[in-house]
Amino acid sequence: MILLGFSQNRSHFYFGETEADPLSESRKNKIAVEIYGRQYVIVGDESESHIRKVAAIVDEKMREMKSRNPSLDTAKLAVLTAVNAVHEYLKLQEEMEKYKYKKD
Amino acid sequence: MILLGFSQNRSHFYFGETEADPLSESRKNKIAVEIYGRQYVIVGDESESHIRKVAAIVDEKMREMKSRNPSLDTAKLAVLTAVNAVHEYLKLQEEMEKYKYKKD
Repeated sequence: MILLGFSQNRSHFYFGETEADPLSESRKNKIAVEIYGRQYVIVGDESESHIRKVAAIVDEKMREMKSRNPSLDTAKLAVLTAVNAVHEYLKLQEEMEKYKYKKD
Repeated sequence: MILLGFSQNRSHFYFGETEADPLSESRKNKIAVEIYGRQYVIVGDESESHIRKVAAIVDEKMREMKSRNPSLDTAKLAVLTAVNAVHEYLKLQEEMEKYKYKKD
């Protein structure tokens, strides 16, 4: 199982296994989730519901991709899920910039 | 090589290989990118610079994760990159909702 940490600084993240601070670590949420048939423990300051929501979205997107293209292996499915998630993020960021500009 | 399509509807995406419309497909950008040592062709209405930016971010995040946790295989690295990208997306979405609420 893997420990994945979400840092509070949104532009960075870290793995609990390698950068954990034992004192603050004990107060973090550690949530076991299943994504595309594999177990992960996600560690972070985020709420359990947020962590579960993120895992469920990734799982769903990977299954959706697999059903559309059954020949893809897990690594490629996950890379393309990441590609799409980053794409969505950048589009939302652009939208937010436009919105701010319009409102200001 | 894989054909990944970005649809114009931001809530969905599709693979060019399975859902391509041959007529509109010929007008789309087809960009070959390398992500974590594997070749992908990303097909979509987005600009070449946007597609390259997305691929570069995913590649960079996967390399960053690998350097922090060398034992992870490619599939897990990619899943965790997707997890983090979806996390960032949801946080930005929350931020945007708050911003809209404050402004209205």
